[in-house]
This record gives sequence, C-alpha cells and structure tokens, in this order.
Amino acid sequence: VRKFLLIANKAATAPFKLNDLAGSAGRMDIVCRCVSSSLFLSHGIRKDTEFHVVLLGPPNPPKHISFYGSSVRRMGPDERNIASFISKTLSGKKFPGVELRDEGVLETIEAIEYDEGFLLEMGGKDLREIEFLPNRDYLFVLGDHLGIPEEILKYLKTNEFGEISVGPLKYFSSHCIVMVHNEMDRRFCS
Amino acid sequence: VRKFLLIANKAATAPFKLNDLAGSAGRMDIVCRCVSSSLFLSHGIRKDTEFHVVLLGPPNPPKHISFYGSSVRRMGPDERNIASFISKTLSGKKFPGVELRDEGVLETIEAIEYDEGFLLEMGGKDLREIEFLPNRDYLFVLGDHLGIPEEILKYLKTNEFGEISVGPLKYFSSHCIVMVHNEMDRRFCS
Repeated sequence: VRKFLLIANKAATAPFKLNDLAGSAGRMDIVCRCVSSSLFLSHGIRKDTEFHVVLLGPPNPPKHISFYGSSVRRMGPDERNIASFISKTLSGKKFPGVELRDEGVLETIEAIEYDEGFLLEMGGKDLREIEFLPNRDYLFVLGDHLGIPEEILKYLKTNEFGEISVGPLKYFSSHCIVMVHNEMDRRFCS
Repeated sequence: VRKFLLIANKAATAPFKLNDLAGSAGRMDIVCRCVSSSLFLSHGIRKDTEFHVVLLGPPNPPKHISFYGSSVRRMGPDERNIASFISKTLSGKKFPGVELRDEGVLETIEAIEYDEGFLLEMGGKDLREIEFLPNRDYLFVLGDHLGIPEEILKYLKTNEFGEISVGPLKYFSSHCIVMVHNEMDRRFCS
C-alpha cells in the first residue's frame, strides 16, 4: 500500500467557504489537489492508496483527515468536490473511506503503519534510483507551499526517513505525488 | 518552448458558473488542472511553456484559448482562479498572456509553430525513451476524459505525430503533462 502524508501548515480546521480555498481556507486547494493526485486515475480510483493530511491552520489545530482509496465513494477529482468532503468532515459528517482524528503530525506518523518512510525534499536521492519492493507499505511525507516544520524534519531524519527528490526543479506537492505513483506503477503495474 | 494542446470535448464555450466546473461547465475542471500543470511550478511560472485548449462544448464551439507562461499575470494554480480567467476570456475580457480565437482543433494545430509533435496515448513509445533536443519547440496533444476524436487522431497520425505513453496505467491529462515536464526538466534543467 502506498501512503502519502501532507502537512498543511495553514489549512482550515473548521468548515470553510468552498469559494475561497486558496485564501481564507488556508491553501486548502493544495490539499485538494494532493487528494486528487493520490487517489484518482483516469476512470478509476487507486484502491491501494491512502492519503493523510494534517491540517494545522485555525481555529482548532491539529486535525488529521485520512482518505482510503479502497473505500471512498462518490468523490470527484475536482478541487471543489474534494473540498466539500473535507469541510463536511470537519463539521462532523461521516463518509465511507474518510476519517477525522485530533492528531498532530508526529502522532499521525506514529499511527500510520508502514515498512519504510520517505520524505520528499529537493536535493534528496533521485526517485528513479530508489529501491522499492513489491507488497511493502511505503509512507511518503510532503510539505505544502511552506514546507515541513523544522521539528518534524528533525524527527523524520532521526527516524530514518530517506530523502527523495523527483527532479531538478521545485514542484507542487500534488505533482510530486503524481511522479511517485508513476514510478511505482512502472515497477509494479506492468 | 514546450507547447501543450488539450482537446476539451464538452467544455463550455460561453461564460459559465464557477461553482459547477465538473458539471454544467463540461468538465472545465480538467481544463483548469491542465493549465495549472502546464504553467505552474512551486513558487513560479514556467515561462518557456504555452498551453492551448480547444473548447468544443455548447453553445458556441469551437473556441481556442492560449495561455503563455511568459506573459500571464496574477493567475493562481487553483481550479477556481483559472476557471475565472477562462470564463471572463469567453465573455470578451482581455488578460495579458491569454488569447481567445475562434479556431477548431485542426486550425489550432496548424497555427501553432513547432518542430516536432507528439500525441499522448496509451501504448505509445515510453516517454523516457523519446529523444528530445534542446532549443526545439515541441507540441504535445492530449485528449480529455473522452479522448481524442477519431478524425483528429487520423490527422495526427498522418502528420507524423509520435505516440507517447507515460506509464502502464491510464492517467489524467494533467498528470501526463506533469510527467512530460518532469522528463524534459531532467534532460534540460539540471
């Protein structure tokens, strides 16, 4: 199973307006694009994938929301649709394949089960040179536009998260997810 | 220069509601994600990239809208912001780096200047094995969720557009763009 964790430094932790995702919702557009890149294929959902986000913005941080590709239903890949799931989840509504917990980043990482963890970071080892094995659970941690907080970086490095780079430029988190998926598809989905 | 052309089979050709991009606007969300993948990097715009879309939905098809990375201003990477540029452009408003023309797909392809053309298609040659040369203009043609109309496919094939595949699964057009950019970045932006 492929597991992604996004740290959303300013994203809203209470229901928000769907018309201002990039503004008052604290760059919730980034969160939505990462959900979309993680879970959706053209005409299908990646059942072998989990997406986790820890929302750290006002008013009630932290909130950890999980999306399980194996069980989400009736979600579309567009930002507004995904945002409406997030906002309603924050209001207490339940959906199949979506779970809300009051967990911070470190608690979330400790709660997720994985065999090997990676951190997406400029200057890390080239994704294409990383060894991946079939039937293992991988966790990939990503920051948003503000990056990964220093104390979390320290934790990841002391906990043997390998640093992965996807290319020579600085890409959106959602685009990094696309490239990680593609690399693993090439290895395991022929 | 890297040039992308998306064929948006059902996308609206008159101003549309920003709250229903995936519905009444004819999957305009797909168009917006492709603009975003084509032009945006984290904290920057790809000045060497053009994105073209031909909108073929009601009520006034066809409409060809071009976005030039070298000159677009104040555009955000989120779907709603890009959609508002498209909708206002369709209403006749002008923006730097955005142009509207009454051109169909074939006219658009003939109007774009490029040295070599490619077609993103399952089963094509692996992107990673394509030879790209520096300082050439490449055009990449993509379909939306409905694919590329048969007569356009025929035209592309008789006009020596090479078929490129980005991986073993069927990916979103916007994700194909991410992977094409990444491959070219790896070759030319070290």
